Amino acid sequence: MHKLALIGFGVVGQGLARILHEKHEELKKKYGFECSIVAVSDLNKGSAFKAEGLDIEKLLELAENESISQYPGAETGWDAIKTIKESGAETIVEVSYTDIETGEPAYSHFNAALEAGKHLVTTNKGPTALFFKELSELAASRGVEFRFEGTVLAGTPALNLAELCLAGNEIREIRGIMNGTTNFILTNMELGKSYEDALKEAQELGYAEAVPDADVEGWDALAKVVILSKSVMGADIGVSDVDRTGITGISIDDVEKAKKDGKRWKLIGKVTRDGDKVTASVAPTMIDITDPLAAVGGATNALTFVTDLMGEVTIVGAGAGKIETGFSLLVDLLEIDRREK
Amino acid sequence: MHKLALIGFGVVGQGLARILHEKHEELKKKYGFECSIVAVSDLNKGSAFKAEGLDIEKLLELAENESISQYPGAETGWDAIKTIKESGAETIVEVSYTDIETGEPAYSHFNAALEAGKHLVTTNKGPTALFFKELSELAASRGVEFRFEGTVLAGTPALNLAELCLAGNEIREIRGIMNGTTNFILTNMELGKSYEDALKEAQELGYAEAVPDADVEGWDALAKVVILSKSVMGADIGVSDVDRTGITGISIDDVEKAKKDGKRWKLIGKVTRDGDKVTASVAPTMIDITDPLAAVGGATNALTFVTDLMGEVTIVGAGAGKIETGFSLLVDLLEIDRREK
Repeated sequence: MHKLALIGFGVVGQGLARILHEKHEELKKKYGFECSIVAVSDLNKGSAFKAEGLDIEKLLELAENESISQYPGAETGWDAIKTIKESGAETIVEVSYTDIETGEPAYSHFNAALEAGKHLVTTNKGPTALFFKELSELAASRGVEFRFEGTVLAGTPALNLAELCLAGNEIREIRGIMNGTTNFILTNMELGKSYEDALKEAQELGYAEAVPDADVEGWDALAKVVILSKSVMGADIGVSDVDRTGITGISIDDVEKAKKDGKRWKLIGKVTRDGDKVTASVAPTMIDITDPLAAVGGATNALTFVTDLMGEVTIVGAGAGKIETGFSLLVDLLEIDRREK
Repeated sequence: MHKLALIGFGVVGQGLARILHEKHEELKKKYGFECSIVAVSDLNKGSAFKAEGLDIEKLLELAENESISQYPGAETGWDAIKTIKESGAETIVEVSYTDIETGEPAYSHFNAALEAGKHLVTTNKGPTALFFKELSELAASRGVEFRFEGTVLAGTPALNLAELCLAGNEIREIRGIMNGTTNFILTNMELGKSYEDALKEAQELGYAEAVPDADVEGWDALAKVVILSKSVMGADIGVSDVDRTGITGISIDDVEKAKKDGKRWKLIGKVTRDGDKVTASVAPTMIDITDPLAAVGGATNALTFVTDLMGEVTIVGAGAGKIETGFSLLVDLLEIDRREK
């Protein structure tokens, strides 16, 4: 029985909780996997700790309507660090908000968890992109797992695909559509909409924020490129090493011109190895209509791995979503479970 | 140090041998994986056994120019069964020819290996499709691994993707382009060639056999559909349960008509779960140009997994090739190695 503590209980944390609740029997039967959530701590939604485990349905109900701190019979008022250190959980699920400049406060949570010898699974891009090397070294020194599938393409196999299914390949390049919002906008511009109208629609559908810079200026894709560079390519690529251009300069004329040439604009994140040198970029790129990435429309994401043995392997799937991102945490938990058996 | 015996030393066996030779140091360094080939037995190329391991470069040279039986200082004249039982290998790599009607002689090799408590890795579709249930039960009873990534889409992650990266999902449907030869022909028909000319070109390029029925009548795709049905969907689907139609009835007119409607013909293998019922088919299908499978041209293969948590996840990659299929065996060996650690 795995004991989990969740740091953060927003959309993603709730997504995982819902999956664990609904799949409880199936996971036990199919994988011999059992877990209980012993603690949750969220800055806005309150906190609850119960050594024998919290009822997930009750948690989800409280998170939606009141405060987790109202959980009957649970201890409350625990901040993230106390929850990590004192809840008795052996795995910390860190899904608090992300900050790509400092990584905080999540980086402190990551450190506290690993220092205390706890497995860490997360979807939190900021600290993973900024401090991957330090964190993975710390995890190795404590003999615990640090897994973060959901930081790139939500639960669509990306990091696990490279690690488990393409093991033995040298990965020479990874390129792809790593941001659904910008792909949604570009796809709609191909259908004749202006950038402004396409952005507005993305905002209305909840794909884009009111201040859309993280997406349209390429910051979100950049974080993913850095994570792929460091974790898959083993390269020392920092945020400032990535050549970044967003999609705000792409006009409907550019889109039309590309169409006429049998091409399509996509915001492509790319990491390339050339001998010992690794370079990374995020930029609007005209790609040929026959490229598997060209067929990826709307908010869908995709990655192409260029390898020495398998040539090009492309994966296409969701890049966001409550359940899809929640699933990334489940698959990481299942992998930890497999390794412990 | 894993000791391997190879049953069959044609294109795929040689592909694996070349990879193991060239990546020896890299595999040791990156995964702590070491192996030696202690025996090879091939109906046409002869046999060699050496308890301390065979030199791979020498083996490849002999396979190309003379007979493996000429290997200096090796014991020779061992048939497959003797090689399996007496070589001291703890893993058998079965890559002899495939027979989709009886599964033999490979099925006897599979049985001998598992009965003797040896891990089995294979790319051999016939016995895997016909006897998956019996074989996996036998492997489980002996506490050994039976892995066969290369039976579906060569080394492109298909079975491992489902098992390792999509674990926790209910897979409701798998559909895809599972045969490169027919996809090459259909792609060329879209470019204006007749079926006959496209087939001829596929034959000249070595994609299609002189008697092309296994590909164009859908038998090859059918074997893969059966393997996916049984191993991923856990369904009791036999070869005769699959509704199979090849591409020989598709005319250039059909292709043109589809094009006008924004569609494209593909030979689609499909397994669908509806409650407790699973149905499987192989048939030319008109798919919408916006479907990720529509963008897959030439000899490339692709699979879409329809899941409960992740929605649709599509993988695109090589479906054949010496090194690509050889890699499927390597990734299975690495997985066995991980499980033993």
